[in-house]
Amino acid sequence: MLTVFGSIALDTTRTPFETKERILGGAATYASMAASFFVPVSLIGAIGNDFPDKYYTQLGNKMDIKGLKRFNDQKTFFYDSTFDFDLSHRTTNITELNVIENFEPIVPAEYKNSKFIYLANNDPEQNIKIIDSFNSPELIVCDTIEYWIQNKKNSVISMIEKTNGVVINDQEARLLCNNSNLVKCGKQLLSYGPNFAIIKKGEHGVLLFIGDDVVPIPGYPLESVTDPTGAGDSFAGGFMGYLISKSKNHLIDDLALVKESILMGSVMGTFAIEEFGIHGLMRITSENILDRYDKYKKLLHV
Amino acid sequence: MLTVFGSIALDTTRTPFETKERILGGAATYASMAASFFVPVSLIGAIGNDFPDKYYTQLGNKMDIKGLKRFNDQKTFFYDSTFDFDLSHRTTNITELNVIENFEPIVPAEYKNSKFIYLANNDPEQNIKIIDSFNSPELIVCDTIEYWIQNKKNSVISMIEKTNGVVINDQEARLLCNNSNLVKCGKQLLSYGPNFAIIKKGEHGVLLFIGDDVVPIPGYPLESVTDPTGAGDSFAGGFMGYLISKSKNHLIDDLALVKESILMGSVMGTFAIEEFGIHGLMRITSENILDRYDKYKKLLHV
Repeated sequence: MLTVFGSIALDTTRTPFETKERILGGAATYASMAASFFVPVSLIGAIGNDFPDKYYTQLGNKMDIKGLKRFNDQKTFFYDSTFDFDLSHRTTNITELNVIENFEPIVPAEYKNSKFIYLANNDPEQNIKIIDSFNSPELIVCDTIEYWIQNKKNSVISMIEKTNGVVINDQEARLLCNNSNLVKCGKQLLSYGPNFAIIKKGEHGVLLFIGDDVVPIPGYPLESVTDPTGAGDSFAGGFMGYLISKSKNHLIDDLALVKESILMGSVMGTFAIEEFGIHGLMRITSENILDRYDKYKKLLHV
Repeated sequence: MLTVFGSIALDTTRTPFETKERILGGAATYASMAASFFVPVSLIGAIGNDFPDKYYTQLGNKMDIKGLKRFNDQKTFFYDSTFDFDLSHRTTNITELNVIENFEPIVPAEYKNSKFIYLANNDPEQNIKIIDSFNSPELIVCDTIEYWIQNKKNSVISMIEKTNGVVINDQEARLLCNNSNLVKCGKQLLSYGPNFAIIKKGEHGVLLFIGDDVVPIPGYPLESVTDPTGAGDSFAGGFMGYLISKSKNHLIDDLALVKESILMGSVMGTFAIEEFGIHGLMRITSENILDRYDKYKKLLHV
């Protein structure tokens, strides 16, 4: 079982072509949805009194949501943003933390033996507490965001020290490591202690740092993007889910499997951004996923 | 024999760490130097009365320079630019076209049977004339730059129609095709007639468009960059040189070889930018090149 902890949001997303209001979003939503195609997932998070039953049901159909706590005196985390014409730059219009601001996450008893943990973009201090709540996790992977790097940099590093892997985007890596060269950033991330680091570069793919290897993996070439929201989170969920589902043991000692899991993560990211919100992940089948994965792998063969 | 036509320059290159004045540069210089490791190269270009004998000798040691014409009443093309702290953005300080402004290139009789032609960043109308001067070329590849797209867009397209392949960077592709999505740009480039198109994305590698395939190939991860000048030109030269040296016939029907040639092009680009000017290409051996190529290919294996 993979336990995902992170934000569940209501997103208002505006592109030059269409606007969708208060749709289901959040880092944990995308990551857990993507992972659920490969492994049983359990979700830890908080929602408010405005969270539609329909979304609650959509999450519940895909995963265990005993850890999803509803607070009837508060509102759900809300994020309103606008993409530019190229869908490459996003401007934040409104961020209302609401229920997640002072959330004290509790790991349900049934989740405590979870071996695999993915920590989406939460407060690193919350993440450190969560890590210590599990009995004997085998693989802990975290992401983080600019906000925490700017406000709690030391806690971000302490969190990374407690993980097996970090998945982070290029701008965040540069900010955290104070270096513009991504190869140097990746090596610095490894120096904090995790077994691997993955720097996400959007459409340009990722750089994987593991042992002494620096492995570049290009993105899947996609012609039609509708809503880039959730690409990186779906990548992380797909990566974790596939890795866990295929590994017998020693999860991160098998470089070939780690690379394949990155391809699968990228595939899940492409499905996420072809439609608004989670619709791209909701409408696909395992067959769609494997078809794209096989095509991608074949393209990359040299 | 590969014939290269394009600019030979004196570059003044300023980085936050060091400045080098009036060093040997230009698109044709980098491309021909990189290609010369793999095939005999002949160069067509123009230099002025200020072109140092030392540089003339450096070129002559690597390739046939019967097509390199010195004009004693003019000065060499001069380009002065400054890189920012990240070495990712370049500001042009001075561009003096000088001898290349009204150059009427002539293909020496000895070059007319050349089967392989690479046209670096020259005036597309000059390039079209050059193409028509060869007897029976088998592979013609061109690059272009923003200046020509903005000033002679129709001629750029007419030039591409006469080639087998186009190698162009991402910003130029977006400008030429008036589309922000690179997959759409690549397909549009193919619609002009060439057998393949390669869109260069700097450190992020390239997208290859050939037949119905869109192949993403990541860049070689490089930790130390000294002077990014010439990366794309060295890529093109290495790509052409390797492709020609390894192909028996039907040069661009062998997708595996085209991919390998792209890897070799990327390798030559990395050597170019590790040192100022052409020094990175001057100091390496075939063994250095093959070592990096093998390491790169191994990293990319999935």
